[in-house]
Amino acid sequence: METNYKLTISYDGTGYVGWQTQPGKPTIQGVIENLLFKVFGEHITLRYPSRTDAGVHAYGQVASFKCESEYSAERMQKILNTQLPPDISILDVKVVGPEFDARKALRKKYTYRISNAPIRSPFYINRVWWLKYSLNKNNMLEALKLFMGEKDFKAFMGSGTEVKTTIRNIYAIDIKQDGHEMNISFTGNGFLKHMIRNIVGTVVEVGIGRYGVQDVVNMLESKDRRKAGITAPAYALYLEEIFYDERE
Amino acid sequence: METNYKLTISYDGTGYVGWQTQPGKPTIQGVIENLLFKVFGEHITLRYPSRTDAGVHAYGQVASFKCESEYSAERMQKILNTQLPPDISILDVKVVGPEFDARKALRKKYTYRISNAPIRSPFYINRVWWLKYSLNKNNMLEALKLFMGEKDFKAFMGSGTEVKTTIRNIYAIDIKQDGHEMNISFTGNGFLKHMIRNIVGTVVEVGIGRYGVQDVVNMLESKDRRKAGITAPAYALYLEEIFYDERE
Repeated sequence: METNYKLTISYDGTGYVGWQTQPGKPTIQGVIENLLFKVFGEHITLRYPSRTDAGVHAYGQVASFKCESEYSAERMQKILNTQLPPDISILDVKVVGPEFDARKALRKKYTYRISNAPIRSPFYINRVWWLKYSLNKNNMLEALKLFMGEKDFKAFMGSGTEVKTTIRNIYAIDIKQDGHEMNISFTGNGFLKHMIRNIVGTVVEVGIGRYGVQDVVNMLESKDRRKAGITAPAYALYLEEIFYDERE
Repeated sequence: METNYKLTISYDGTGYVGWQTQPGKPTIQGVIENLLFKVFGEHITLRYPSRTDAGVHAYGQVASFKCESEYSAERMQKILNTQLPPDISILDVKVVGPEFDARKALRKKYTYRISNAPIRSPFYINRVWWLKYSLNKNNMLEALKLFMGEKDFKAFMGSGTEVKTTIRNIYAIDIKQDGHEMNISFTGNGFLKHMIRNIVGTVVEVGIGRYGVQDVVNMLESKDRRKAGITAPAYALYLEEIFYDERE
């Protein structure tokens, strides 16, 4: 019986060169596919909505795969979690209809964690981008608003990728502040390579006064990566949740 | 000019055999004292209110030392933070009167972090005690109340220590719940070796039904370590804050 499994996966990306399989290098996809090979004796390729860069974490990555298997969702989850390293956890397994494909996500939500506490906490290592500068948060919020909606994000795309279009739609940007810490969440239909990190880096540069809000308007219009701001570090970015059409 | 410095220190205890200096082994006290030797060319011994075990963390450990120095508090903080490893941070430095002694704490506050999420998060590693059992939280709260006030905690003291008295006073126990996570904070005039970890281990055993609340009464009365429950792991314990007489 061919079964279609949907996995929800959390991982600490610190020890990996990223999600996507690269021969001879530690990747989250590679670890899970190697384990599936051990379990089923055949090579299974995961389908997934979003690659994450080296060091980027996930609270809710999704992957799906079909294989000849009688295992219930619960049993599959137990088999995987028992053998995965402690920095990868399968939070949920569902048996889904044959039409479900993890690639076909409706929305993706990422969160970026910043702190401008006066002194770096040891607990920020590999988790939170610590900025010793004082930040003008009002200006940062103004700048963030400019990224809402359907836009051409070409100036905020990392180099070395080929895509059909650089237009993406950001549906929501949520900011949570807790003392010196600030979590910025982006929900969109998709993100270009390094797009969130380039947006966050630019917005932080607005916060420290290196750019004004009008400069960000010009960056977006320029469609030129060299005009936009710095790339925020990977280790403070978290793939939060992937949303699908509920009917599937 | 002899100056008396008070340091507030945060550390990730994962890489250390504990706070207290042990020759040839990595300790937080040792790292800071070695750095003070580099800065001042003399061996300075820190005074401190509380040792922490191997793996235990701190948000607000305190230490004080006197030395011949003209450095302002701000300058001292910068000198130390520039040279300390990233898992130790000096959150604050104050120049205090000669009578201040970090050993003479009025109260100490520790927090223990537990989760009984259905699946272990990768972010719990070295941070949070994950329990896959379902926990009866009402019974845990009832059991925790029994530890409030001035008591003989002999049954909850780890072996291998000599103390004048095993009586300690717990002024407050605060419980914060957030989804599957539970933070239990203990504020007291002092704690015996492993005392908080033994209390938490026992209370968790009450939560999973291995002991009833009356059993905990009997454990306290027995003054016998073998009668009490298990020792909770070190990596989920955080030295939160040390309180001093404000007049000093």
